[in-house]
Amino acid sequence: MKSKSSTIRLLYAASHDNADMLYAAGIFVPDPFLAILTDKQAYAVVSQLEYGRVARGSHFDEVMLLEDIRKKAAENLQMELREIGAGELMIYFAQRFAVKKIEVPAEFPAALYAKLYEAGYHLKIIEGPFFPERAKKNDAEAKAIRRGNAAAAAGIRAAEAVLRAARIEGKRLIYGGRALTSERLRTIIDQACLTKGAIAQSTIVAGGRQACDPHEVGHGPLRPNELIIIDVFPRVQKTGFHGDMTRTFLKGRASLAQRELVASVRAAQRAAIDVVKSGVKGSTVHEAADGVFVDAGYKTERRGQSFVGFIHSTGHGLGLEVHESPRVAKGAGKLKTGHVITIEPGLYYPEIGGCRIEDVVRVTKSGSELLSSMHDRWEIR
Amino acid sequence: MKSKSSTIRLLYAASHDNADMLYAAGIFVPDPFLAILTDKQAYAVVSQLEYGRVARGSHFDEVMLLEDIRKKAAENLQMELREIGAGELMIYFAQRFAVKKIEVPAEFPAALYAKLYEAGYHLKIIEGPFFPERAKKNDAEAKAIRRGNAAAAAGIRAAEAVLRAARIEGKRLIYGGRALTSERLRTIIDQACLTKGAIAQSTIVAGGRQACDPHEVGHGPLRPNELIIIDVFPRVQKTGFHGDMTRTFLKGRASLAQRELVASVRAAQRAAIDVVKSGVKGSTVHEAADGVFVDAGYKTERRGQSFVGFIHSTGHGLGLEVHESPRVAKGAGKLKTGHVITIEPGLYYPEIGGCRIEDVVRVTKSGSELLSSMHDRWEIR
Repeated sequence: MKSKSSTIRLLYAASHDNADMLYAAGIFVPDPFLAILTDKQAYAVVSQLEYGRVARGSHFDEVMLLEDIRKKAAENLQMELREIGAGELMIYFAQRFAVKKIEVPAEFPAALYAKLYEAGYHLKIIEGPFFPERAKKNDAEAKAIRRGNAAAAAGIRAAEAVLRAARIEGKRLIYGGRALTSERLRTIIDQACLTKGAIAQSTIVAGGRQACDPHEVGHGPLRPNELIIIDVFPRVQKTGFHGDMTRTFLKGRASLAQRELVASVRAAQRAAIDVVKSGVKGSTVHEAADGVFVDAGYKTERRGQSFVGFIHSTGHGLGLEVHESPRVAKGAGKLKTGHVITIEPGLYYPEIGGCRIEDVVRVTKSGSELLSSMHDRWEIR
Repeated sequence: MKSKSSTIRLLYAASHDNADMLYAAGIFVPDPFLAILTDKQAYAVVSQLEYGRVARGSHFDEVMLLEDIRKKAAENLQMELREIGAGELMIYFAQRFAVKKIEVPAEFPAALYAKLYEAGYHLKIIEGPFFPERAKKNDAEAKAIRRGNAAAAAGIRAAEAVLRAARIEGKRLIYGGRALTSERLRTIIDQACLTKGAIAQSTIVAGGRQACDPHEVGHGPLRPNELIIIDVFPRVQKTGFHGDMTRTFLKGRASLAQRELVASVRAAQRAAIDVVKSGVKGSTVHEAADGVFVDAGYKTERRGQSFVGFIHSTGHGLGLEVHESPRVAKGAGKLKTGHVITIEPGLYYPEIGGCRIEDVVRVTKSGSELLSSMHDRWEIR
């Protein structure tokens, strides 16, 4: 590390739970650490607990030992060693690089922002994506997302098999001699994801009215003749990339209203996927799905404090985060080649039930490439 | 919401991945939202996707609908609706409460800090725990941590059973007809945790030299006659509380050096647990473990860029985060009744292997109460 750099970018986070840091580091580190990015080089400062691993296996050009750098910072800043925290390290590097401008992400810790501000560094906060290039997925990244979707599909197939094997007894589903609950089905799904090397969290298994509350994960006994939304978004342990898939099932006999609802959601999804291609706006994709619902007479409206109809956006970017850039919603900008997005329209009416169907596509020049694969049979007798 | 409040505390985070927000909310919300805490009341502003669930099931005294509040903020601040983001909402509430002082946690997003700063609000950043009371666990919280440890123990027992069933074939362990790897054993452990309702991430299954790199999760074939560290810290899905347990196993025959190493780590753990009680410093607990190693002649030292010996602290607080207050390390302050801490001394020498043994205790007036339970037989023939 010799060169000066007029602009540096700082990250302070654990790559285990911060996607930008994982993108920069290419390796999982469980505790927050400092990364310094210049035009030419990427540096990391990690403790001895991480040093060997990060020095060998990360994307960084140079990895420095925290214990050494703290000593140097103390000398340079003429402070006691115990006073040297992350903020002081940043000030030390800012001096060492003779920096004029420092950029940080929007979620950079306020405490460190304030410390640098007081030291005379007026940070530029990057609103929106810190690495806009993260939205464009190369082949290896698309493959990692496919793996995530394969894990999600394994989970959904496991759930389907259980619903198929379950018996209907009055208003309950019986499996393995006792009531089948959202919780039991979730465990079975999450275990199937694990066999594919992916960790699922907050898997949604929500039936009936519960499914109309889009972030309700679902609890208690599942019932026959009700729509059951299963939404699985596992993270592949090796890469950190996610899958994200949703299917809606019904065990028993669907009503006409339920059949029409599901058919309309599937039609909306097809319509949305059909318009996806490079240069098309995310808002146009959303309108394609919305148009199908409007034409079919499904109203989106407020009822008191809750909402019914098509109450969320059509999709979102997917990658190292479950929700990331770009948006596929009202007001969203142009899709570009390589963007990976979910297409997941849904309809929610407590008197009928909720239905959402979700797949993942990568935007291409002429259309899109499907990164998820799972049939759409949903009525299970 | 009528009263004025001279001081308010703000949080902006998703309770799914922010422990302070989960503590305040008592319910999982996957996307960041605004919480406003006055001396008397706690308020949340959530989108229609969350409203019903949060209004019914959270700790907040009042839950407001984001869509409504954004409109009110736009009117009050005389701005366009599309200009109203999280920062503008905060300014709106600061005006509405006629606030003099705003407190935020150290990891509050810099972008929001800067926005409030520009609007004339000089935020007080709370360094260290935002809710110091989180460190003291009541009986329900201790029970939730016990559940986490029961899940961890189930995972470790599953691993032990596999090691027992595995055959030694030359330098490999064979299980189910093929080489037993860290990855396979990790999947089995994580699946066992799931059956107990807990999600394990980054489970460590590291043998031989890999175990001497404390944050290496382990990869590739496991070998006979090598110490294998298994460290499991699952999060109970229902409560968000974690367990954290470590055991070290060896399949085959241990050398004398390995036996002495394991015996010393177990002795250090006992010595540390023995001194735990309310009023004793975390540093004293650390010294108790360290003293056993020093007396036994185990040196902690640097070798180039890596370190050997007792290279980490004796423990850490455990709760909604895997690592939280209080510290159990050099320089750590007094333990208090209700603190829940891990006690996990370890020794790491590439030429012998690594060993760590970890249990969890709750500090009491006269000593401590064990919140984890698992035998300590480690040699598996």
